[in-house]
Amino acid sequence: MKARVEVFLKPGVLDVQGKAIEAALHGLGFPGASDVRVGRVITFDLAAADKAAAEAEAKAMADKLLANQVIESYRVEIAA
Amino acid sequence: MKARVEVFLKPGVLDVQGKAIEAALHGLGFPGASDVRVGRVITFDLAAADKAAAEAEAKAMADKLLANQVIESYRVEIAA
Repeated sequence: MKARVEVFLKPGVLDVQGKAIEAALHGLGFPGASDVRVGRVITFDLAAADKAAAEAEAKAMADKLLANQVIESYRVEIAA
Repeated sequence: MKARVEVFLKPGVLDVQGKAIEAALHGLGFPGASDVRVGRVITFDLAAADKAAAEAEAKAMADKLLANQVIESYRVEIAA
């Protein structure tokens, strides 16, 4: 089963990478870009019995390793 | 307009970050995870006249700055 975990900084946490990209975009001639935020996506195959089990396992992975829940939030998607 | 650019390493390019996460997941008791790949997502607001213009501008941004097309591919999504 294909799993996909998206990790973003929580709203309110300063996204320095996003700010740097925003400044670079403005410098490159894209003044219309604002509120740039950067996150990461982790995709993987998961050996699980069904979709619910896969979702529970992917969430456990995110809690333990993939996201730092002090400053990040995550979203799990399972493709059947 | 909300834009979203997803950047992934091209298939065939060794994803060392993904390999490290995979090994860590196995060590943490998730042996079922395989083919772990890591990408990034850049979201931003875009001042554009319409969806087509926003998409063209986001693609230009990806070409110039957001993705390294030698080793990465990207996908642009515009939410109306």
